[in-house]
Amino acid sequence: MREVVAGIDIGGTNIKIGLVNAEGEVLWRSTVSTNQYPTPQILAEELHQLLLPVLNSHNYTLKGIGIGAPNGNFYKGTIEFAPNLLWEGVIYLTEIFQSVFKVPCLLTNDANAAALGEMLFGGAKGMKDFIFITLGTGLGSGIIANGKLVYGHDGFAGEMGHIIVKPEGRVCGCGRKGCLETYCSAPGLVKTYLELLSSSELQQNITAKEVFDKAVSGDKEANEAITFTGEILGKALAMAVHFTSPEAIFLFGGLAHAGDRLFLPVIENMEKELLPIYRNKVKIIHSALPQDDAAILGAASLIWQE
Amino acid sequence: MREVVAGIDIGGTNIKIGLVNAEGEVLWRSTVSTNQYPTPQILAEELHQLLLPVLNSHNYTLKGIGIGAPNGNFYKGTIEFAPNLLWEGVIYLTEIFQSVFKVPCLLTNDANAAALGEMLFGGAKGMKDFIFITLGTGLGSGIIANGKLVYGHDGFAGEMGHIIVKPEGRVCGCGRKGCLETYCSAPGLVKTYLELLSSSELQQNITAKEVFDKAVSGDKEANEAITFTGEILGKALAMAVHFTSPEAIFLFGGLAHAGDRLFLPVIENMEKELLPIYRNKVKIIHSALPQDDAAILGAASLIWQE
Repeated sequence: MREVVAGIDIGGTNIKIGLVNAEGEVLWRSTVSTNQYPTPQILAEELHQLLLPVLNSHNYTLKGIGIGAPNGNFYKGTIEFAPNLLWEGVIYLTEIFQSVFKVPCLLTNDANAAALGEMLFGGAKGMKDFIFITLGTGLGSGIIANGKLVYGHDGFAGEMGHIIVKPEGRVCGCGRKGCLETYCSAPGLVKTYLELLSSSELQQNITAKEVFDKAVSGDKEANEAITFTGEILGKALAMAVHFTSPEAIFLFGGLAHAGDRLFLPVIENMEKELLPIYRNKVKIIHSALPQDDAAILGAASLIWQE
Repeated sequence: MREVVAGIDIGGTNIKIGLVNAEGEVLWRSTVSTNQYPTPQILAEELHQLLLPVLNSHNYTLKGIGIGAPNGNFYKGTIEFAPNLLWEGVIYLTEIFQSVFKVPCLLTNDANAAALGEMLFGGAKGMKDFIFITLGTGLGSGIIANGKLVYGHDGFAGEMGHIIVKPEGRVCGCGRKGCLETYCSAPGLVKTYLELLSSSELQQNITAKEVFDKAVSGDKEANEAITFTGEILGKALAMAVHFTSPEAIFLFGGLAHAGDRLFLPVIENMEKELLPIYRNKVKIIHSALPQDDAAILGAASLIWQE
């Protein structure tokens, strides 16, 4: 009997499921689409049907289930008012999964889960103080201090994407203005690029990846847009350093692939806004988690770290 | 034999020493002036001479020594390049005290120590996630997450006074511009008040306390200055909440005595800049530590919390 943990990542479009061993190997994985499950009870039951034969045929023992989910509350095991999910209100998801699978189940938001994944299986092995940032559709963050994930008193800590960096700045999905993620995210980069273009050149349907490709081929505005994104991110990271003084900040997700084009302005602007005692100490590192399995590894880490 | 801890607070002008029991009672206290000790070795030896008869006559056992000091590094037990002390460079203070007193000695910066004091002996008993802010000559902060003080990887976490809140803002003692403490501190309040006065009314030698007194007696600019201070602090606290989602934020020090005049704009502006999931949850509370003994209690908490 080999012990495995099921890591489940619930997104607005897809749900990823994987079986992860103690070494952080993903032994089996699957993806299902989120909207086919009208209730979380049905999701739990159908995933049980899906996993049972896999567990039996490989002689795996299921040690527990870790779930990463938007607006996930670690303490209550709930998803609360997630704007991108069909399930409304407060969903007691870990209770449902525990009653169906009869194993321990823990849940947190996706960036927090990925931070744990980085600590157990990625580039933060042995680190006790670091910050993990996901740069995708939004900006997510997970903070590790004293070797523990910071959940906060209510289970919702680490919403760095929503600190206000520009009063009266861009409108955010959260209903406020000037949030960090309206600048430092894939859509934020595209918006910056479009703002830099003269109106006659407007290309409304460009993606962040296409902005990168343009930058690589020497496009001036595309390079400026990435530099601007790095500037704002670097200044926000400087603030973060003054709070928890991390050994490293890991960047993950689509935008992190921009490499030095993004990392250099991030580092330059962060260092510029640091108190001298923090300078030239904090490493800005690309996440070592594999892009495709990061969410599953992160979710599984909730159980493996116990 | 009753166990006591010596709490020592090292300031630029005075050093406070107290003996504290497990219940947080200060059983004995003394104040000496800092500049009479040309070296930390002499300080340790003279404090030993001072404490020995007190310990013997009361039949106290000294369990350990906790020290709060500017630029104090918990992990190394050092004071590093403290601008307001005669002792230059890196001082291995806990080593010196341990060799003289033959008891365990721990050290951290004064705001961190006071945060521990609030948790053990003040208004944060039972809280696992809170932030402690000192508003005095500068702005100090201590962050508690998961029931532990956040020291950061290098022992220097919690320098919230130096996050930059106004690019190209007021010049700070740290050599940069726009740091939070240039606005939210006793000198910051005075500066704001003087800026609000027309030049003909300039009163360069006013203190923060006198600005409060003017505000109480209805002075328009004094009230505006306190409100402005509260606005900037409230916005900075909103940022802090997005990082560690504390149950409460404790305000301590001279400025905190302004009461509702300061607290109301702090709360209003913090709430305005919070993501909805955090709203109406975070208590802004006046520290319950006695003003005069807070530093001693905080320093002693380093040992009592072990």
